[in-house]
Amino acid sequence: MTRVFNFSAGPAALPEPVLECARDEMLDWQGSGLSVMEMSHRGKAFVSIAEKAEQDLRDLLAVPNNYKILFLQGGASGQFAAVPMNLMRGKTSADYINTGAWSKKAIAEAKKYAEVNVAASSADDQFMSIPDPASWQCDPNAAYLHYTPNETIGGVEFHFVPETGDVPLVADMSSTLLSRPIDVSRFGVIYAGAQKNIGPAGLTIVIVREDLMGQPMDCLPSILDYQVQADADSMSNTPPTYAWYLAGLVFAWLKDLGGLAAMAEINQRKADKLYRVIDNSAFYNNPVAKDARSWMNVPFTLADAELDALFLKEATQAGLMTLKGHRSVGGMRASIYNAMPEAGVDALIDFMVDFEQRKA
Amino acid sequence: MTRVFNFSAGPAALPEPVLECARDEMLDWQGSGLSVMEMSHRGKAFVSIAEKAEQDLRDLLAVPNNYKILFLQGGASGQFAAVPMNLMRGKTSADYINTGAWSKKAIAEAKKYAEVNVAASSADDQFMSIPDPASWQCDPNAAYLHYTPNETIGGVEFHFVPETGDVPLVADMSSTLLSRPIDVSRFGVIYAGAQKNIGPAGLTIVIVREDLMGQPMDCLPSILDYQVQADADSMSNTPPTYAWYLAGLVFAWLKDLGGLAAMAEINQRKADKLYRVIDNSAFYNNPVAKDARSWMNVPFTLADAELDALFLKEATQAGLMTLKGHRSVGGMRASIYNAMPEAGVDALIDFMVDFEQRKA
Repeated sequence: MTRVFNFSAGPAALPEPVLECARDEMLDWQGSGLSVMEMSHRGKAFVSIAEKAEQDLRDLLAVPNNYKILFLQGGASGQFAAVPMNLMRGKTSADYINTGAWSKKAIAEAKKYAEVNVAASSADDQFMSIPDPASWQCDPNAAYLHYTPNETIGGVEFHFVPETGDVPLVADMSSTLLSRPIDVSRFGVIYAGAQKNIGPAGLTIVIVREDLMGQPMDCLPSILDYQVQADADSMSNTPPTYAWYLAGLVFAWLKDLGGLAAMAEINQRKADKLYRVIDNSAFYNNPVAKDARSWMNVPFTLADAELDALFLKEATQAGLMTLKGHRSVGGMRASIYNAMPEAGVDALIDFMVDFEQRKA
Repeated sequence: MTRVFNFSAGPAALPEPVLECARDEMLDWQGSGLSVMEMSHRGKAFVSIAEKAEQDLRDLLAVPNNYKILFLQGGASGQFAAVPMNLMRGKTSADYINTGAWSKKAIAEAKKYAEVNVAASSADDQFMSIPDPASWQCDPNAAYLHYTPNETIGGVEFHFVPETGDVPLVADMSSTLLSRPIDVSRFGVIYAGAQKNIGPAGLTIVIVREDLMGQPMDCLPSILDYQVQADADSMSNTPPTYAWYLAGLVFAWLKDLGGLAAMAEINQRKADKLYRVIDNSAFYNNPVAKDARSWMNVPFTLADAELDALFLKEATQAGLMTLKGHRSVGGMRASIYNAMPEAGVDALIDFMVDFEQRKA
């Protein structure tokens, strides 16, 4: 078996120790004679797995006691609908910041349920920067303000938390949650699809301030109702138990490595060295404003797009997988989430330097 | 490692060869150097896994070409909302047959979106039988008729398919799909949570006739929109890739065993021998009408409920797990889905006979 370095944007690489543990426990979890995926979600064994995972996540993010953590299905795309259906609470409009592809999807879905006020957009800058907060046209009566702290496709990231006063701040953190410490108390709702930094696809983490729950729109499906799921410890219906277990293994792995402060240091170092190679080259280019570059998703282009196919072919041969840029952008994209070891970034850099020397 | 016989109602036992394959491929799927759960859902490797799974399911159920098969999230409980939101199509009411706990949940959720006409109910019989179709008060203008072919908690099963003329027939087959051949062309929509006969929790199969799609209610979240998901091959958002892969392994296992006709023979034999032991005993009792007994979920009580705890303790010691009845019913329940080998039913029967001889 030869494992590769997998730069997929999501579903993405998982920590090898997590996969090894899942493999070893596949037919028999800790002498139970059962696979975790065969366990009743209401049995003692699975409840212990679920509670430990939640507590570890609460510890990692220092989630305050007045926030619930939900383990749901439906992905961030499900939350694009669930957020307005849970949070409009009789108000008519919600503020959205448009910084790229995922912001736009969130906005399109929200329009089914609310008047959307796009308070700021970087469309005029081809989504290569974060709009200056001084220019945002926020509505003090908005039900909430929604933004996308990290745009997975554009590789654009907020390196600050917006100030919204009494308006609840809602963040789609799918591709950045757990990459560094955050101050959860600044947010009304944080949500994330698991398939980047958390676990396998099919699990969605929602962290919600308790006072925002309990006033859903009439048409909200129960499975997406924050209050219903909080009251049932995320088991108002059968949860995605195996994904929950795997997320728990990832949380334990993160704690073992020193938690999110330690991950932040590693992640910043990984990103910095990759951007440095790009910036020091006339052959590679990253178009994003330097103060808005993502630690997690690093898109770059080659000076000659005719070489893209060769670059990808040789990278694959070198064990560097899934570097092709999103179909809407082209070029390359290296997603370097928590599970990408620094050695993987180093190997990518070595390959890029060598390729440039041979082909530029 | 000692594997047990797991009679859980769901999440439930999975075929041991499936778990062994998943274990062996956990870190490296077929030489790719990746776990399946690390693969981009849009990459060639995962698309090949997804397409094979769909084709195998289509083959097993002989799904006609004018039906789409969707691999979604949210469970059957998500479909309780999705069905009316997709199928009302401007009509005002829908017919429901109430045969127990899961019917009631489907009805409660549907009331958010439609006038519900309970066309028949076995409540007067404590849900121990199927209402005689001659007595059903169906509405010829109903958007659809919904029923629950197998009630997982009550252990009550339809052994016929209702005749509804031009009204589309909708079935929650969570705990019976794949247990035997069915005539899909009789149905408008079939849906099932995976965690009984299909795979791990977190995957929902929806089989939908094409002409019923494309007229959703305005408030339908996109992730639950049949047309949106059909147009995107169930990838309008990131699907639960690992659960999809595991379901594919289960489908391949079923084909290897001879398909659903072969499974039906085994399942009927397993159920018949268990009911025979119960019926031939004055100590055990199953209250369900004989023509409505489930092949999948066999609830039974002990003549002396004071012995329940001892029965469960000794069963567990004998490697017969998760036999406790649902909290709303009490007593015992043996769920004997496809993955429960006949040897497991035989072991349960031996234990029951022995326990009765010692304690009755």
